[in-house]
Amino acid sequence: MAGTDKSQLEEDESTPETPSLAVILVEPQMGENIGMASRAMLNCGLTDLRLVRPRDVWPNPKASNAASGADVVVDGARVFETTADAIADLSVVYAATARPRDMIKTVMTPRHGVPNLRREAEAGQACGVIFGGERAGLHNDDVALADVVLQAPLNPGFRSLNLGHAVLMVCYEWYQATNSAPGEFLTEVHTRQATKGELVNFFERLEGALDDSGFFHVLEKRPVMARNIRNIFQRSQLTEQELRTLHGIVSALIMPRNV
Amino acid sequence: MAGTDKSQLEEDESTPETPSLAVILVEPQMGENIGMASRAMLNCGLTDLRLVRPRDVWPNPKASNAASGADVVVDGARVFETTADAIADLSVVYAATARPRDMIKTVMTPRHGVPNLRREAEAGQACGVIFGGERAGLHNDDVALADVVLQAPLNPGFRSLNLGHAVLMVCYEWYQATNSAPGEFLTEVHTRQATKGELVNFFERLEGALDDSGFFHVLEKRPVMARNIRNIFQRSQLTEQELRTLHGIVSALIMPRNV
Repeated sequence: MAGTDKSQLEEDESTPETPSLAVILVEPQMGENIGMASRAMLNCGLTDLRLVRPRDVWPNPKASNAASGADVVVDGARVFETTADAIADLSVVYAATARPRDMIKTVMTPRHGVPNLRREAEAGQACGVIFGGERAGLHNDDVALADVVLQAPLNPGFRSLNLGHAVLMVCYEWYQATNSAPGEFLTEVHTRQATKGELVNFFERLEGALDDSGFFHVLEKRPVMARNIRNIFQRSQLTEQELRTLHGIVSALIMPRNV
Repeated sequence: MAGTDKSQLEEDESTPETPSLAVILVEPQMGENIGMASRAMLNCGLTDLRLVRPRDVWPNPKASNAASGADVVVDGARVFETTADAIADLSVVYAATARPRDMIKTVMTPRHGVPNLRREAEAGQACGVIFGGERAGLHNDDVALADVVLQAPLNPGFRSLNLGHAVLMVCYEWYQATNSAPGEFLTEVHTRQATKGELVNFFERLEGALDDSGFFHVLEKRPVMARNIRNIFQRSQLTEQELRTLHGIVSALIMPRNV
């Protein structure tokens, strides 16, 4: 049966999960920024870096240094003479630019546009994003080659991003687009959450100790005070281990002191 | 009437719109990264930078240089001897860290946690995020001072972000958290979208010209071919100006050529 071909199965499973995005830097000036862009790409699982007319000779040791270990990106970078050459094999290209252009063009925020681009890639389209150099950003001719302009909502008085930061922003949105990690969780340590029974047991012991110590000297206020104290500890999502620590604290505090 | 007190009104309007976030860098090493972090902060409208035991002497010209104009952040940065001192006036502090810690702590992604933090700030709480130095990140003692750990889902094989990039990621999420810009729009130029009447007028003119030129030589295919052509132009969301350009193109192409 064709469906049981193992190599086929593996390919079917891997292809939609690892769509790729090319990052194209047009006339980048500083090797440090190329290196930082490489690091940002690999942080987000991307490796296809393309450079159009980099100012300095390539390979550039400053780029390798700033990449902090993202060698697979820097060493694999390809250099092109024109933007058109660099994107010739791509079907969907977005242009990242801070400045509004006097062109009729669809503009998307990275938050909206990058997941869009990822869906294109998952559907099998070869996708890329072009970024302009440090001095002047993208030429209008480069922007005209793109399908969509990506423009992040930022402080209108200070909008220009560092090149590496711009690459990070786009790659970050790319990685988050299908990330299914929960937004919030409690670090797992080798202990479990305390049960409600253990909690109540602790509350009752604590309240007993407070009774003995005269803490609840206005008796009619005891119920509300006890409730407030329970809420303090309730809110902490205590683990069984932490609850034992708290029991230890109570034990220590009620011990007769050597005066 | 109290409600018409102008100064009061202005304050009421401005306070919830510009909640602030302190960025605390603990033992930052490279001036360049402090400068890049400053630039990222101002890109996102933030200015409250605090440094705990920076490695190099402060003020640091490398930081000012890398800030690329974010002088208001760099020049206003305050230096502290301990993390506890640096966050003493804050009520809600998150710690940005790449590494999981052996602590029982609420962990949030920046996408989930930063909007959370912004809501705290909008409710009047003084908020901040602490970041560790380039070499080893935050000490566990610093993490223990924080309410929540911020940890971005990133390439598990290459998770460590550049310090400036980590600051950008958090500040970017901060700015996006209440940004109400539409995710997608068409650049506004001084022209309007073509009306459907203008479009159909163009389609009919083009199809007439194609009839004359013998383009539709298989007559039974004319309806589907015409429909396909209409779809091409329909998809482009043409403006009235662009439609006039297209009319000009048709006019030029049907002109008798000088052979």
